Amino acid sequence: MTPRHPNARTLKESAKGIPEATVARLPVYLRALQGLKDRGVATVSSEELAAAAGVNSAKLRKDLSHLGSYGTRGVGYEVEYLVYQISRELGLTQDWVVAIIGVGNLGRALAGYGGFASRGFRVAGLLDADASIVGERISGLTVEHTDKLETIIKDQGVSIAVIATPAAAAQAVCDRVVAAGVTSVLNFAPVVLSVPEGVDVRKVDLSIELQILAFHEQRKAGGPHEEYIEVHP
Amino acid sequence: MTPRHPNARTLKESAKGIPEATVARLPVYLRALQGLKDRGVATVSSEELAAAAGVNSAKLRKDLSHLGSYGTRGVGYEVEYLVYQISRELGLTQDWVVAIIGVGNLGRALAGYGGFASRGFRVAGLLDADASIVGERISGLTVEHTDKLETIIKDQGVSIAVIATPAAAAQAVCDRVVAAGVTSVLNFAPVVLSVPEGVDVRKVDLSIELQILAFHEQRKAGGPHEEYIEVHP
Repeated sequence: MTPRHPNARTLKESAKGIPEATVARLPVYLRALQGLKDRGVATVSSEELAAAAGVNSAKLRKDLSHLGSYGTRGVGYEVEYLVYQISRELGLTQDWVVAIIGVGNLGRALAGYGGFASRGFRVAGLLDADASIVGERISGLTVEHTDKLETIIKDQGVSIAVIATPAAAAQAVCDRVVAAGVTSVLNFAPVVLSVPEGVDVRKVDLSIELQILAFHEQRKAGGPHEEYIEVHP
Repeated sequence: MTPRHPNARTLKESAKGIPEATVARLPVYLRALQGLKDRGVATVSSEELAAAAGVNSAKLRKDLSHLGSYGTRGVGYEVEYLVYQISRELGLTQDWVVAIIGVGNLGRALAGYGGFASRGFRVAGLLDADASIVGERISGLTVEHTDKLETIIKDQGVSIAVIATPAAAAQAVCDRVVAAGVTSVLNFAPVVLSVPEGVDVRKVDLSIELQILAFHEQRKAGGPHEEYIEVHP
């Protein structure tokens, strides 16, 4: 068998792609690694990195193997190189231009969210259908009317649209951004959006994390196990 | 071997608990099921439900088996009963009292977020350190000063604290809510919070979903594969 370079990946694997669940964990690893890098840590074991990211170390090693990153026995992973590998894999080594449509409380919070710029996401447009807030300055940008949606997408080279409108307006906005050529949509509106094939939509449901907390809170209180029927003692 | 009731779970399994990754998917299944229920669908196959939730059906069946829910061959799962089972497991069949600390744009957006109330989360307090917004009415609640944090937690029976303050204020707020007896914290502040054992913290990073979109956007553009070294053709 041909010896395998630790940073190599076969064509078959790259064609097959990385499992979606792994992709979803890469930003979490990246955040943990950035924290280590900021503290001047040069290498990290899979156990330490797994603990910082809240997964088990076998899963972490499996996930990173999809990137062709296997670490070095007894040493672990080089923090800086792994930051680069994950960033490259996620596409964060290039800039992404984002437009936020819907400038209510959530849209304003997103416009001022520090975590976007530090990850290579540049908010290039804030748009709202309400003429009374058009022209307002928020986080260094002027709110534009949604009439200009197509123009801004084209002129600014917007590749990701963030929809923070009320539920009733979201699908129409989505249709327009897709028609204007945007193929990635982040949806905060509490509605399921229909998009043609080839367009990715991710929906943020702010209540999901609360539900996970409720699960643990209930466990601490001892429930709901008492209701289960015991079959095998 | 004793025949096993399809809705039963052994003591060993319940003591062992449900895998964390399964817990994280239960709210997603619940959302898909609520959609089916609203449309009057009575039963659903694991394939249909898996497609609606965006997972593969083997994983869905495995996840639901942890709840003692196995479906019926040729029929699938009863939508209404599965909604009840998941809701009970997540602790959503009881009410949870939530306080939001930090009434900036994000705190306001969260206060008005419809997805909380419909899942059994009742926002009972909005608190901010800025005296100029104390007394303001938002989504039916009056903003209170953070001086009253401990009193409100006790009087209202708050069990989950949502921290939406600036990063610099978050740890001090967290320490106070924990000292006042809160054991679940949802953190939107861009900082890692330290808590004693027995306290659950979940951190919402609004940039994670954007990073996942960037991954797919890059894939559509054909990258970053060209950079990989090919070893096994």
